[in-house]
Amino acid sequence: MKDWVINLTVVLADGTVIKTRRRPRKSSAGYNLNGLFVGSEGTLGLVTEATLKLAVVPEEFSVAVVTFPTIRDAASAAAEVMQTGVPIAAMEIMDEVQMKVVNLGGATAPRLWKEMPTLFFKFAGTKASVKENIARVQAITKNNKGSNFEFAKDLREQKLLWSARKESLWSMLSLRKEGEEVWSTDVAVPFSRLADIIEVSKKEMDDLGLFASILGHIGDGNFHESIIYNRTKKEELDKVEKCVKNMVKRALDMEGTCTGEHSIGWGKKDSLLLEVGPDTLGVMKQIKAALDPLWIMNPGKIMDLP
Amino acid sequence: MKDWVINLTVVLADGTVIKTRRRPRKSSAGYNLNGLFVGSEGTLGLVTEATLKLAVVPEEFSVAVVTFPTIRDAASAAAEVMQTGVPIAAMEIMDEVQMKVVNLGGATAPRLWKEMPTLFFKFAGTKASVKENIARVQAITKNNKGSNFEFAKDLREQKLLWSARKESLWSMLSLRKEGEEVWSTDVAVPFSRLADIIEVSKKEMDDLGLFASILGHIGDGNFHESIIYNRTKKEELDKVEKCVKNMVKRALDMEGTCTGEHSIGWGKKDSLLLEVGPDTLGVMKQIKAALDPLWIMNPGKIMDLP
Repeated sequence: MKDWVINLTVVLADGTVIKTRRRPRKSSAGYNLNGLFVGSEGTLGLVTEATLKLAVVPEEFSVAVVTFPTIRDAASAAAEVMQTGVPIAAMEIMDEVQMKVVNLGGATAPRLWKEMPTLFFKFAGTKASVKENIARVQAITKNNKGSNFEFAKDLREQKLLWSARKESLWSMLSLRKEGEEVWSTDVAVPFSRLADIIEVSKKEMDDLGLFASILGHIGDGNFHESIIYNRTKKEELDKVEKCVKNMVKRALDMEGTCTGEHSIGWGKKDSLLLEVGPDTLGVMKQIKAALDPLWIMNPGKIMDLP
Repeated sequence: MKDWVINLTVVLADGTVIKTRRRPRKSSAGYNLNGLFVGSEGTLGLVTEATLKLAVVPEEFSVAVVTFPTIRDAASAAAEVMQTGVPIAAMEIMDEVQMKVVNLGGATAPRLWKEMPTLFFKFAGTKASVKENIARVQAITKNNKGSNFEFAKDLREQKLLWSARKESLWSMLSLRKEGEEVWSTDVAVPFSRLADIIEVSKKEMDDLGLFASILGHIGDGNFHESIIYNRTKKEELDKVEKCVKNMVKRALDMEGTCTGEHSIGWGKKDSLLLEVGPDTLGVMKQIKAALDPLWIMNPGKIMDLP
């Protein structure tokens, strides 16, 4: 996200209104306040305007979908695509449970998806480069036990092939029964450890005996667990909480982060301390105390003061 | 630069050593200290280690060079390349004075360059995409009165064609006579204003009657003025200083920044205030005061306290 923000208008704790920077693509004028306020979860100020970068609309798009016998094979294929440097616009992983959830939800009917670990690719560029990159991705996925490779020949097929990814969250939410919720959380690890953490985390999650799936922005080393559970059943709540905490601990053990994009909020304050340590958290607290001494901006999020 | 920094080890003013973040490509864990310390010119802490991103080495590279009748034509061609979204690895502009400086310096001899406004392009990607992008850039530059289009057929020619860009600073420095210095400074503006500011600034610079040239990372809206002058001659110093201040003021009037990549240092503290205003500068000062209350880290750079 932060890479797409040119500048922000922010109302500070004392009511002052500032603009973080001006409009050029590049500037080295003073501290990078833009990068500081983006992702600060409203704890340093209230964002009232954002100027975003525009990108050129590419000449051509396409989408490809490919299935794998195991989640590790899918993750290995994704790693090889990244390491080869094939330019892709998006690369997403969904496990066999998540694919089943989409089928059950019915949002993409009458199309039924193979209930297998699946990679979704988006391509963008010139006609020639999109064609070339599809061929390279097809060769790499085939080498990693991929099968059922499909790519979109027109806009209608693009929408159809991407629909499973697009409907994944809503399909999951639609399966909740009375009293049930979805626990959705994310971590990110260095790319080289992604297959390891997904494989182990998926096994532990499958053992819960609940509807639990994995979905990820795999090109960033970032993935999500989504678990349907009943919060009023203490035993269920406890085991889901333990499973999620184990995933976060595993990510930290692999030099990863406790959250790739969901942020800290109330829920991961302990994990943030484990991740960055007391001295780095101390610097964050000094900045918070300097800009919001009365602790009135979204208090209690990210950190506890003093 | 900041886009390539994964994390930093920083020694703070009180001797504490922190790491700004961990290794994943993506994280939303707490404040973005990484972005804050990069570009803070040593005023918040002393960087002792940096972890950088690695990029995949592309299959193919090439370089192209093309000349234009006026600097505005060159800037217009560059704008069209950006607006069309042709993926290029680098795009640099040099004016006719800068090309002459390279010829005079002799570092690329026996090759002699046309002493005309010139664009330099670097391409990287697959063989097919590099070929396609060279053709697109050739068509765009031709439409904008470009001529003498050359592109490199092998590594030796790549080095040769890029050599004028590579030797530009050293060629300039080699032309100094006894007592002379080079005043080198940069600004950046929104892309749509680049041709305007370069044209006007170049005219004012030419009127100085000194050796003065323009060179720019034009894809970022960022360019540099380099002026050879004698600091001991008060009249020369005064007129160069006025010319540079006018360029900075012009950039700010166009919603630009007083520095794209050279930073504030001692020299542009007044310009920073003009650029961001007292409230935004005030936030920078609050952060400085929180992390370095005794003002011992690179004091006097970027801002004056209190």
